[in-house]
Amino acid sequence: MGEVKVMSGKRILMLVGDYVEDYEVMVPFQALQMVGHTVHAVCPDKVAGDSVRTAVHDFERDQTYSEKRGHNFTLNATFTEIDPTTYDALVVPGGRAPEYLRLNSRVLEITKHFGETQKPIAAICHGLQLLAAAGVLAGKTCTAYPACGPEVVSAGGKFTNVAVDAVVVDGNLVTAPAWPAHPQWLAAFLEVLGTKISHQPSAAL
Amino acid sequence: MGEVKVMSGKRILMLVGDYVEDYEVMVPFQALQMVGHTVHAVCPDKVAGDSVRTAVHDFERDQTYSEKRGHNFTLNATFTEIDPTTYDALVVPGGRAPEYLRLNSRVLEITKHFGETQKPIAAICHGLQLLAAAGVLAGKTCTAYPACGPEVVSAGGKFTNVAVDAVVVDGNLVTAPAWPAHPQWLAAFLEVLGTKISHQPSAAL
Repeated sequence: MGEVKVMSGKRILMLVGDYVEDYEVMVPFQALQMVGHTVHAVCPDKVAGDSVRTAVHDFERDQTYSEKRGHNFTLNATFTEIDPTTYDALVVPGGRAPEYLRLNSRVLEITKHFGETQKPIAAICHGLQLLAAAGVLAGKTCTAYPACGPEVVSAGGKFTNVAVDAVVVDGNLVTAPAWPAHPQWLAAFLEVLGTKISHQPSAAL
Repeated sequence: MGEVKVMSGKRILMLVGDYVEDYEVMVPFQALQMVGHTVHAVCPDKVAGDSVRTAVHDFERDQTYSEKRGHNFTLNATFTEIDPTTYDALVVPGGRAPEYLRLNSRVLEITKHFGETQKPIAAICHGLQLLAAAGVLAGKTCTAYPACGPEVVSAGGKFTNVAVDAVVVDGNLVTAPAWPAHPQWLAAFLEVLGTKISHQPSAAL
């Protein structure tokens, strides 16, 4: 005690909105908390305790994803009260939310803060639409849902087409094409965040 | 190098079926892989690469959960090929799958193996129906989706009614009422599995 300085988990901000993808909001929200991080999910015009509707985006042999109605996802922080300078990292899930969230100037300002300060940013699927609109992709190698590639390129990003379960890391930026990549995408994000994991014998045996 | 013996992640089996709950199958499947565990999801009569349909169970002010159609979840192992003795732990998600999976004698045998050997078992929501049918709850303090409480009690379990986001741990058994408990439930499961987490400064800064 006193000899070992224990660092606590990081403070992570998530930008979400109605029809955020069902898995892409909940898996990072819960998995990052599982390992001790604090995650605050916010949405413009909503407060802590409000919910957003999620969309189930799946790949069912159509030319692009299918959509069904998912869960309601409960926000745990209030958009107007958050100060991005108090957060260590940003997560931007996909679905149909980023397409319209990028019209909100405060959302863009918040996103720019993480880009300018080189704080870790994890974005997946259509989440890259928001990063493109905020101008934080210039010169950055990244991936996204392939149909968003043209927007990434227009914003000066170096779009890389990778397997649907692969991750691309460029400095503070951790990106992936869609939710099948969650394990690899989140493992890479943990590495950038400085989260270390080790395995011991099972405690129950 | 050579001085430190690094233990690898554990081998974890998941028992799933059609209409397993959408979040309850994917969040543990991906979050446990995120921290380096191997997770094999299997379903009777299906093989690796097949999928099960998921159910979105939500709480929308009705007397019990609502159900919508979720994603398709791809299995990554073949039921007839798995040997439970080669796995370190078991995960049983909820939804409507456990109600009928408990009619399968091989599913019950597999579940009994983890109970008899005191290997870690994480079950959530209706997953407790399967543990009750397999006879592994006798004398165990646990929780479940509250409507499953009578089955837990009939099977000799000590049912505890806890908040929807709380976890109950009794030795090797880690249980929770439903998916809002995932962060707490999975953090407790990691502790039983021997997974250690520490936080360092962000690598990107």
